This record gives sequence, structure tokens and C-alpha cells, in this order.
Amino acid sequence: MELKKKEEMNSTNISFRTTIRQLIEHKYFQPIVIAIILLNGLIIISETYFNGNHLLLALDKIIVWIFVVELLVKVIGLGFKGYFSDRWNWFDFSIVIGSLVFYSTPFVSVLRLIRVLRLIRMIPAIPALRKIIDSLMKSVPALTGILGLTLLIFSIYAIIGTTFFSEVLPYEFFGSFHTALFTLMQVVTFESWASQVARPIISEVPWSWVYFVTFIIIGALVILNLVVAVILSYLSQEDDANREEQMDRLFKENQELKQDIHEIKQLLLEKKKG
Amino acid sequence: MELKKKEEMNSTNISFRTTIRQLIEHKYFQPIVIAIILLNGLIIISETYFNGNHLLLALDKIIVWIFVVELLVKVIGLGFKGYFSDRWNWFDFSIVIGSLVFYSTPFVSVLRLIRVLRLIRMIPAIPALRKIIDSLMKSVPALTGILGLTLLIFSIYAIIGTTFFSEVLPYEFFGSFHTALFTLMQVVTFESWASQVARPIISEVPWSWVYFVTFIIIGALVILNLVVAVILSYLSQEDDANREEQMDRLFKENQELKQDIHEIKQLLLEKKKG
Amino acid sequence: MELKKKEEMNSTNISFRTTIRQLIEHKYFQPIVIAIILLNGLIIISETYFNGNHLLLALDKIIVWIFVVELLVKVIGLGFKGYFSDRWNWFDFSIVIGSLVFYSTPFVSVLRLIRVLRLIRMIPAIPALRKIIDSLMKSVPALTGILGLTLLIFSIYAIIGTTFFSEVLPYEFFGSFHTALFTLMQVVTFESWASQVARPIISEVPWSWVYFVTFIIIGALVILNLVVAVILSYLSQEDDANREEQMDRLFKENQELKQDIHEIKQLLLEKKKG
Amino acid sequence: MELKKKEEMNSTNISFRTTIRQLIEHKYFQPIVIAIILLNGLIIISETYFNGNHLLLALDKIIVWIFVVELLVKVIGLGFKGYFSDRWNWFDFSIVIGSLVFYSTPFVSVLRLIRVLRLIRMIPAIPALRKIIDSLMKSVPALTGILGLTLLIFSIYAIIGTTFFSEVLPYEFFGSFHTALFTLMQVVTFESWASQVARPIISEVPWSWVYFVTFIIIGALVILNLVVAVILSYLSQEDDANREEQMDRLFKENQELKQDIHEIKQLLLEKKKG
Repeated sequence: MELKKKEEMNSTNISFRTTIRQLIEHKYFQPIVIAIILLNGLIIISETYFNGNHLLLALDKIIVWIFVVELLVKVIGLGFKGYFSDRWNWFDFSIVIGSLVFYSTPFVSVLRLIRVLRLIRMIPAIPALRKIIDSLMKSVPALTGILGLTLLIFSIYAIIGTTFFSEVLPYEFFGSFHTALFTLMQVVTFESWASQVARPIISEVPWSWVYFVTFIIIGALVILNLVVAVILSYLSQEDDANREEQMDRLFKENQELKQDIHEIKQLLLEKKKG
Repeated sequence: MELKKKEEMNSTNISFRTTIRQLIEHKYFQPIVIAIILLNGLIIISETYFNGNHLLLALDKIIVWIFVVELLVKVIGLGFKGYFSDRWNWFDFSIVIGSLVFYSTPFVSVLRLIRVLRLIRMIPAIPALRKIIDSLMKSVPALTGILGLTLLIFSIYAIIGTTFFSEVLPYEFFGSFHTALFTLMQVVTFESWASQVARPIISEVPWSWVYFVTFIIIGALVILNLVVAVILSYLSQEDDANREEQMDRLFKENQELKQDIHEIKQLLLEKKKG
Repeated sequence: MELKKKEEMNSTNISFRTTIRQLIEHKYFQPIVIAIILLNGLIIISETYFNGNHLLLALDKIIVWIFVVELLVKVIGLGFKGYFSDRWNWFDFSIVIGSLVFYSTPFVSVLRLIRVLRLIRMIPAIPALRKIIDSLMKSVPALTGILGLTLLIFSIYAIIGTTFFSEVLPYEFFGSFHTALFTLMQVVTFESWASQVARPIISEVPWSWVYFVTFIIIGALVILNLVVAVILSYLSQEDDANREEQMDRLFKENQELKQDIHEIKQLLLEKKKG
Repeated sequence: MELKKKEEMNSTNISFRTTIRQLIEHKYFQPIVIAIILLNGLIIISETYFNGNHLLLALDKIIVWIFVVELLVKVIGLGFKGYFSDRWNWFDFSIVIGSLVFYSTPFVSVLRLIRVLRLIRMIPAIPALRKIIDSLMKSVPALTGILGLTLLIFSIYAIIGTTFFSEVLPYEFFGSFHTALFTLMQVVTFESWASQVARPIISEVPWSWVYFVTFIIIGALVILNLVVAVILSYLSQEDDANREEQMDRLFKENQELKQDIHEIKQLLLEKKKG
């Protein structure tokens, strides 16, 4: 009797899971999820205009619970293992759980930040966005070297800057290592680098033009290299696949030709002997 | 009698249409149309210097009527269906009709806007410009993902900005969602992002450097991806066509070789049996 | 007697020309010319520091005469036809003649301009620079379309700008068509576009954000296209030559293979008949 | 006896060198060197916050001596010739020796500069960084032409600028040739080129807009060419190697095919004769 009951339960369990799986794979499931995230976005934007509106806050609470339900449905439908085998689901999971945990936080600003981060769920939900992030991630290894070099160059120039210019301009520019890093970031984006940073310093420390000119040239070169590295990593991701395929087809055809010619030769040699 | 008349009319109609068609396809037709559009441009530019000059206004009116005649000639020559089968003609049609409809509008500014838009007729009239827009349109599908991502990132940062910095700077910067979007556009083009936007905010909200630095890095990365996507879409449009052709020729030649070798083999096998 | 004299003269003429030709083709001739142009550059730069120094002015005069001699030597050595068959020589010729003609001009500023332009002679003198300009010229036809489009877009936005914003900012910004063009150039290079141009206008004409945002996006797209067009024109100039060669080699080899196989087939068919 | 002793010494010398060589090639040797350079970086950054701290200065001194020991170990392990056959080691050597020599300099600023330069040792120590610099160096020859052209264009515009605008703006802008070069660098990076440089000059010298517009267009074109040259040099470095390999494989296969077909033909011809 007990066994039978268990089996029954198991079978209901399985049929229950199958039903939920069908629900997840239903063609309207994903679009509805995307629509809810979009609605969530609109609510959050509206809140910036109508701050503290009760209707909007209530709608936001409802959407968090919808997200929790969606997460549960997915975990049940795909199984614990199946769900967490996709990295994006980890990401999804932590955002939804984070929303729940921090919902009753007394720190309003943290709450708001979490609420906004929920919009990032759009990325795993829409395949086109997911693909961009995936291919961006693939190009990261090709960039580690250049990023390391950038860090090194910024550090060296920041140290030189704090050593020599700390008292020329106000503290926010070269007062300390971290403000110098920020100033260098401003310089590398060419933002008021001459009018606000370089010219006032040069008028007091004449040789400092070397510092700025070399930094801008080196910085531009490094950024150029970064751009080229990204382009090359994309080109090789896409183009090579294409060409490789064609080349493989060509090699295969050649192989067949060779085989045939070899057989012909064999036939002729046999005949000669015979 | 009646039938005959109808036939006659039909035939005159056809011969009339043929004449007009020949007119449209005449080698001087398109250059004259382009010249008139150019003249129109000169008149509009002159008007910015001699505001309300009667001669210029009269010339402008004449040109509108020339455009109307040109449109009628084209519709008659190519037939209703033939004319509207080209999308650019839709565009042309709406501009000319819009010019006519709004010519007696009391709103001077709307009138002027319509008048300027007539210059866009240059694009369908000159094949080189048309081609650029066409190939630009072709690269749009490859960009939808990145444009969506850009929108998402701008929205998230704009919401965070309005939440935390709305009272630090004047209303035009982060006062509301739409002003924040504009400010972010200013930041992403590196325009006074540090001197006018970031530095004043950082001096009051110290952690905000994270906001600006991450936005600039993410923004630059996304724009870089956009550039790469455009380059790749162009490269594949042009280059592949070229290479594909060569590869096809190669495959075809190989196919012929294979066929010949197969026949040789057949011959030898036959002989062996025989 | 007379004929003989003429012949003699002719022969001396020819041997004279040959001597001069050898002079031109001497391995030190071109480096010396380059050195003199460089010296000329140094003299002109020195003059900006020691304005009106007599030694420098005298040296400059001497160099002009050296240039004239060089030009005469080249014209004689290569012959009138040979000299003017190279476009760069036309350029050289007009600069040197211009230097001579304007040397006694009362307008000091024109004189100085001509003197500086003499430095451009460096481009035809150094092959590496010549090559860059040549390949730049080759990529121009591919750009005419985009340049035309840029002109059109700038014109349309300049007209709209003068129509609507002429009284919002001082005259130098949108006061007339030509100042509007300059302002748009400032906007398209992202230079203070928001802080100096867009924000003051938006605060008086709220809808004008559409004007600036669309202009920046369209402008950036067009510039991006220009960049891509240049890259593609260069890539196809270089890359294709390379690949074409390899493909040609491949096709030729295939052709030989085909020929051999055809002959084999012929042999076998003959035997069958025989 | 004497000879034996010498041999013994020699053999101990060799075994000593072998031991040191094993030390250098030990898998932990390079990581430890990198760790020490990183530590050195942290100490130098800390010093910008705690200026003149004795502990930090002592640690810095210890690290210099560690570097000297590392250098000696390497010279002994690889031999004088082996060590200096690698260009990077020359670089390393001069930095370490420079650190030693200038350590007791009375000029604090020179000392600090040398100390910071020690961080550049990171580049030869980490293979990824080394590779970037190496491939950057490889692309330099392709750029000499464009760099020369850039120099020429800057010089010409700087001379024109000093000639005509030296009294319009303060001395720092177009007062002399070198300040004009700096101002042109500001203009070419689009930094306040209109608001701070061009507009004030245009308001006094109306035709000067030609100067700025042509400089920006030419400057942008040249930079674009520089970017394209870098991209092309990288593409050809990477891509060609790849394709060449495939093409070589293809040619080799074709060669084999040809050989086989030739032999078949020979067989058939022999038979015909026989």
C-alpha cells in the first residue's frame, strides 16, 4: 500500500513537473516575462517623476512576487541541477533573491539600487542582448594584456603626477594617487585636458608639457590597440568559422579526387603486371 | 463606333504614356531634377540671409509646382503600381504632397521645416547617396541588439542618477529621468563630463566616481561594439560576395575534374571486364 | 659648314643633357634636395623666434635660388615633356615659381604664407610621404558619396538652426548660415556641444534637444560610415591584390590538372576505339 | 697540479653556473620576481600617501638590492653574452643600474622618477605585456611615413599660426612655434578647439576659420589613416599567417595530385608504345 502511494505521488510529481515544463516552454511564457520586466522598468521610471506614489510601490511589490513565482516555476520545471547549469540563471537568481532580502531594508538608497538592478534581468531574457554579452565576454581574454598595460601606465603617470604637481592645482586633481587616476581618466578622454589641467600646470612647471603630451600619445596608442584587439577578436570569431568551413569542403573534395586517382593508378599498374 | 473610340483613346493613352516614359528615361531628365533640387537649396540658403525676400519666395513657389509636375509625370510614366513599388518614391511623394498641403499653413515655422525637408529629395535623386542609405539600412538589423542594450544601460544609469544626484546639480542635469538621459549623452560623448558633471557631484557624493567611471567604460565598450558591428556588417556585405564567387568557381572546377576522373575510372573498369 | 656646326651643337647639347641627367639620378642628389628643404624649414621656424633677422632672410633668399636652379636642372635633364608628365612636378613647379613671383610682394603676410608652403615640397621629395598622399587620393572616389551626404545633412541642420535659434545665442552661433555651419562642426566634434551650445538653447526652446540629439546620432553614424569606407577602400587595395594572386595560382594549377586529365581521357578513348 | 686545480675550479664553476641556471628556470623564480615588482609598486603608491615614511623607504632600499641580486643571478646564469642578447635585458639592466647610481642623488625629484620607472620592469617580466609592446614595435615601420606627414602638417600650421595669430590670444596659444605646436595638439584632440581657441581668433581675424576647419579635417584624415595603418599592420601580421598556411596545404595537395596524374599519363603512353 505504502509503496503504491509513493509511486502514485512520484507519478503525480513527474506529471506535475512535466506540466510546469510545458508551461516554461510555452511560446507565450518568455514574451510575458519580458513584458513584465519592461512594465517594471516603466514603473521605476514613473517613480522618478511621482516619488513615493503608493500605487507604483504596490505594483512594484506585486512584480517582485511575480518574479519569485517565475523563479520557483523555472527551478521546479528544469530541476535544481538543470536550472543552475546555466550561468545566467545564477545571475537571475541572485537578483531576485536580493530583491526579496533587501525589500524591507531601512536604507532606502540600497532598496532603490536593487530595484534598478532588476532591469538587468532584461539581458538574459532577450536572446539578442544575451548574445552580445556572451561575445563580449569571449573577447575579454584577448584584452587582459592591454588592460594590464593600461593599469601600469596609469599607475606610473599617477605617481609622477602626485609627486610633482600635487601643490600646483587644487587637491582634486593631483592631490593624491586616487584623484590623480581620475584626472588621468579625464585627460585620456580628452576632456578639458588642456584648458583645465595641462595649461595651468605648464604655466608653473614648464617641463610638464612632456608629461601630458607623452601620456596622451601613449594613451591614444594603447586605446587604439584595445580597439584593434577587439576588432580582431570579433573578426576571427566570425570570419574564420566561415572560411574554415569552405576550406574544409575544399580539402575534402581534394581528398576524394586523390582517392579516385590512386585507384586509377592501381588499376593501370595491375593491368601492366597482368 | 463607341468601341472604336475607346480603342483609339486607349491607343493614344498608351502612346502618350510611352512618350512620357521616354521623357523620364531621357538622359537629361534626372540631371535637370537634381539641378532644380540644388537650386531649391540655394534659394532656401539665400532666404536665411535675405529673410522674406519676395523674389526668393516666388521662385520657391515655382519650384514646388515643378516638383508636383515631376511627380505627376513619373506617376503617369511608370503607372501607379510601378511608381509606388519603389520605397524611395513613397518618401518622395510624401515630401512633395506635404509641401503642397502645408504651403498655406499659418505656422511659419512648420512651413520652413517642410521647405528644408524638400532638400532630402537629393538622396533618392542621386544614386551614390541612395546606395549609402540603402547599405546603412541593411546594417540596422545587426545593430538592434546593441541599440537595445544601449537603451537599457542609459535607462539604468539615468534612474540611478535621478535617485542619488537630483539635488546636487541644477535641475537640468539629473533633475528628472529625461534630463538625466540628456546628461548621460553628454557624458558618453566625453563633453565636459568631468569638469561640468562629475567633479561637482563627486565633491558632494564621494562614491559617485564609481558611477561615472563605470558608465564611461561600459559606454565606450558598447560604442566600440557598435562600431565593430557596423564594420563587420559592411565587411561581410562586400568581402564575402567577392570570396564566395571565387570559391564557387573553384568548387565548380573541382566538380568538373571529379567528373572527368570518374569517367576515366569507368573506362578502365570496363576495359578490365571486357 | 653650317650643318656641321649645328650637329656639333646638337651633340654637345645631348652630351650636356646626359651629364645633367646623371646629376639628377646621382644617389646624393635627392638626399641633398631633402636636406635643403629641411634646412629651409629650420630657417622658417627660427624666423618665428628671431623676427626679421637679416642672416635668416639672406639664407632664405639663397635657398629660393637653389630651388630655382634645381627646377631648371630637372627640366633640362628630363626634358619639358618628361618633367611635366609627373603631376607632382606641376605642384613643385607652381610652388617654386610662386616663391619667385611673390618674393618682392609688398604684402608681408602673403610672402610668409608662400614661404611656408615651400615646406610642402617635402611630400614629393620623400617617397614614403608621396605614397601616403597617393593612396589617400585613391580612396577619395569611394568617399564622394558620403562627403556629399555630409554636406547635405550639414546644410539641412544649418538652415533649421538659423531659422529657429538665430536669436537665442549670440550671432556667432546660429546667426547666419555660415556661422551655423561652423557651430555644427563644433557640435560634430563633440566640443562643448552641450555646455556651450545645446544647454543654453534648450533652456529657451525646449524641443531643441531633438535637433541636437538627432544631429549627433546622424553625424556620428555618417562619420562612422566614412571611417568604414576608408578602411574598406584600403583593405581592398591591399588585401585583394594578395589573395587574387594566390587564387590565380590555384586556378592555373587546376587548369593544368584539367588539361592532363583531358589528355588521359583522350588516350583511353583512342585505345578503346583502336 | 696547477692544471688539475684549474680544471677543478672550472668544473665547480660550471656546476655553480648550472645550479644558478636551474634557479632561474625554476617555475617559481619569475612569479616571485613579478610579486616583488608588484610589492615595489604598492610601496611607491603608499609613499604618495605617507610621504617620507621610514619603513617604506627601508623596504624600497631592500627591494633595490633584491633587484641587483636578481640581475647578478641572471647574468651569471645566462652568461654575459646570453644575458645581453635579449634587448629587454638591456632595458632591465639600465633601470636597475640607474636605480643604484641615482640612489644617493641629492635631487629628490630625479630619485623619485627613477623609482617609478622601476615599475616598467613589469613589462619584460610578464609575457603578455611583452608581446603587446613587441607587436606595437613591429607596427612602427608602417607608421613612419604617416608620423613624418603629421610632423610636417603640424609644423606648417604652427608657423602659419605664429605668423598671423601671435598677438590675438595670450602668449601660451600662438606666441611662439612651440606653444603653437601644443595648441595644435589641443585642437587635434578636439579639446575646447572652438570655444577656447578658434572663436576668439575668428572674431578678430575673420578668415581664420579656414585655418581651423582645414586643420581639423586634415588632422582627422591623417589620424584616421594612422588608425587604418595600425589595423592593417595587425591584420596582416595575424591573418596572413593563418591563410598562408591553409593555402600552402592546398598547393601541396594539388602538387601531389599533379604528380599522380603525371605518372598515370606516363603509364598510358608507355603502354601505347609497348
